[in-house]
Amino acid sequence: MDKARLEAFSDGVFGFAITLLVLGIQVPSLKTVSEAELRTGLAQCLSQLVPYVTSFATIGIIWLNHHAMFHSVERVEHTTLSLNLLLLLVVTFIPYPTAVLSRYGALPSSTFLYGFVLMLLGVAYSLLWIHISRRKLSRIPVDPWLGKVHIKRNLAGILAYAIAVGIAFRLPQISIFIYFATAVFFFIPIRHQETGGQDQT
Amino acid sequence: MDKARLEAFSDGVFGFAITLLVLGIQVPSLKTVSEAELRTGLAQCLSQLVPYVTSFATIGIIWLNHHAMFHSVERVEHTTLSLNLLLLLVVTFIPYPTAVLSRYGALPSSTFLYGFVLMLLGVAYSLLWIHISRRKLSRIPVDPWLGKVHIKRNLAGILAYAIAVGIAFRLPQISIFIYFATAVFFFIPIRHQETGGQDQT
Amino acid sequence: MDKARLEAFSDGVFGFAITLLVLGIQVPSLKTVSEAELRTGLAQCLSQLVPYVTSFATIGIIWLNHHAMFHSVERVEHTTLSLNLLLLLVVTFIPYPTAVLSRYGALPSSTFLYGFVLMLLGVAYSLLWIHISRRKLSRIPVDPWLGKVHIKRNLAGILAYAIAVGIAFRLPQISIFIYFATAVFFFIPIRHQETGGQDQT
Amino acid sequence: MDKARLEAFSDGVFGFAITLLVLGIQVPSLKTVSEAELRTGLAQCLSQLVPYVTSFATIGIIWLNHHAMFHSVERVEHTTLSLNLLLLLVVTFIPYPTAVLSRYGALPSSTFLYGFVLMLLGVAYSLLWIHISRRKLSRIPVDPWLGKVHIKRNLAGILAYAIAVGIAFRLPQISIFIYFATAVFFFIPIRHQETGGQDQT
Repeated sequence: MDKARLEAFSDGVFGFAITLLVLGIQVPSLKTVSEAELRTGLAQCLSQLVPYVTSFATIGIIWLNHHAMFHSVERVEHTTLSLNLLLLLVVTFIPYPTAVLSRYGALPSSTFLYGFVLMLLGVAYSLLWIHISRRKLSRIPVDPWLGKVHIKRNLAGILAYAIAVGIAFRLPQISIFIYFATAVFFFIPIRHQETGGQDQT
Repeated sequence: MDKARLEAFSDGVFGFAITLLVLGIQVPSLKTVSEAELRTGLAQCLSQLVPYVTSFATIGIIWLNHHAMFHSVERVEHTTLSLNLLLLLVVTFIPYPTAVLSRYGALPSSTFLYGFVLMLLGVAYSLLWIHISRRKLSRIPVDPWLGKVHIKRNLAGILAYAIAVGIAFRLPQISIFIYFATAVFFFIPIRHQETGGQDQT
Repeated sequence: MDKARLEAFSDGVFGFAITLLVLGIQVPSLKTVSEAELRTGLAQCLSQLVPYVTSFATIGIIWLNHHAMFHSVERVEHTTLSLNLLLLLVVTFIPYPTAVLSRYGALPSSTFLYGFVLMLLGVAYSLLWIHISRRKLSRIPVDPWLGKVHIKRNLAGILAYAIAVGIAFRLPQISIFIYFATAVFFFIPIRHQETGGQDQT
Repeated sequence: MDKARLEAFSDGVFGFAITLLVLGIQVPSLKTVSEAELRTGLAQCLSQLVPYVTSFATIGIIWLNHHAMFHSVERVEHTTLSLNLLLLLVVTFIPYPTAVLSRYGALPSSTFLYGFVLMLLGVAYSLLWIHISRRKLSRIPVDPWLGKVHIKRNLAGILAYAIAVGIAFRLPQISIFIYFATAVFFFIPIRHQETGGQDQT
């Protein structure tokens, strides 16, 4: 299995999923076409932008990390392929909970579903990362310090999602804030060395 | 005709079709927005995940095999192009029966249509495979043992779909199970040689 | 401007447009979910497959020709870029008339619109082809015989669409047949030389 | 971070966003299927083509410029990645205001929203351009004259959008004309040197 084609296919799927998110923002459906009604309708619909931006940032970060992860991988075998397909399965599903959360707002079950899928994303990503590290599929040995930081960050992310999912039935607004804050947190690069730092975003 | 561009175009279509599947899962359409209604609606909609996952796995496997098939192909001529377009025609159509099966559940006709399209997919793939093997378009001669196993697996898959389609009007739930089991079966790699095995998934 | 990136972008757009066609086939919308209703609904919807297959074949052929056209092009300048974007504008629009024709069948105005867009596609393609031939942007001089055959085929295609569009208000069923037959006609490769023939499909 | 993969991902997103625009043009929804009703419906829907063509041209131009900008970039670091994702976030959002403008015509708020997003696009693009120029990430030093022309054009574009957005509540039709004219203006290449000119479209 050629690494280049796996990367190209994955890039395509990441790019498609990130672009499909926009279909989840509803075009207001007006009974009578008038400026007053459209303004009210748009105001409601544009409050749906928070899940859209959060999902965009989350998929964007996973794409960055996916790239960094495969950068030094030398050979791709069956388990890597399978775990990669599992990750893509979760990625392509994200537009669905995003659309539900956009449409119905921060109700307990929409907030729970959204966070649960993000948590699955973290788990699928971690499984792939652990497999690649353990099986020593990488050409370049991973800096142990960086590897530890990476694992800690992933665990912290999954934990944050788990907490947010747990409180979704009581304080859904706070869960939404945690989803957004986690994406921002992952966007901060690990500062350790001049080079390499950006790879570990 | 350049093989690289055929592969790039095919990869795009596979990746796009696999991502479009998510649009087939319905966002619940509620009369009044309330947590109770949303929970019922989501429970109904998420029971639609079986066809989604089955179609995702089936397209994913066909993509893996497509890649393996073209890996050693040297030149691409008109018949290969035509048969490849036929395969892509079936692949791009898959989101439709998936959406029908998701929306209306395992009724006889939705189950029949879904299985019939998967069977067409198996036939289109086999036609392409047979053409490439027969015309000796491959640079590397295919290991005869592997070639036979590959043909047997394809025939077994088509046969399984044919049986499932045949019983769809009586036992649609069992047909659905066969569709899913066939995808899992194709995911098991052929173990024969250390290398090459994963190419023949 | 790098030719490789223009090709990659165009390939992506062709592949996306060809995959989006499936969204034009309606999932039956039933009042009560029952096997009898679904069967009637699916029978109606699947009669919509003719425009789907015709559009798929037409975009597929334009993609093949696009590839053959750029194969020998050496440098890409502003006019080529602009005419290429014009061609892509028509290509991305095709899912719309396809969806209209699928939804409302061979009514005069849906048939007219569909054929008019296919005619525009032929015109946009010919403009690009004429520009590239005239400005001698090709590395390899085009065989004059092949060049003439190519121009004649394009003119024949545009003429066929023009006739079909002309009779759409009287005999829409025949127009639909002409659209389909033209796609089949363009699929037959020009037989002239062993090599190169498939490039001029 | 590999430049090639950033370009491939960005190309995918540009190509996908440009193709998704077509979903914003409504298929007429008829109460009774008749030629008379369909003709009226299509006439209404096809008046929606102006935003479609404007958005297509705008995304097409940004794609051309994006390519020219990264052509000479040597290394990609965290800020470039982040600003590029910001640009893509705006690009993927464009189908939404396009669909709103298509559906409800040149009402003040639909015209305002559309222009506001185009203005954001100009700002996001300029931020990326300024970052790349300032940080001297380019291999080839940018011709200072060309650099100045480029900045002036970007500022002129943002200013044009700002004016159009400002008058959207009074003269929405004129705003629409400005959006379209700005796209045409950006399409005119900078004539300065034989080579390079087309890169600065």
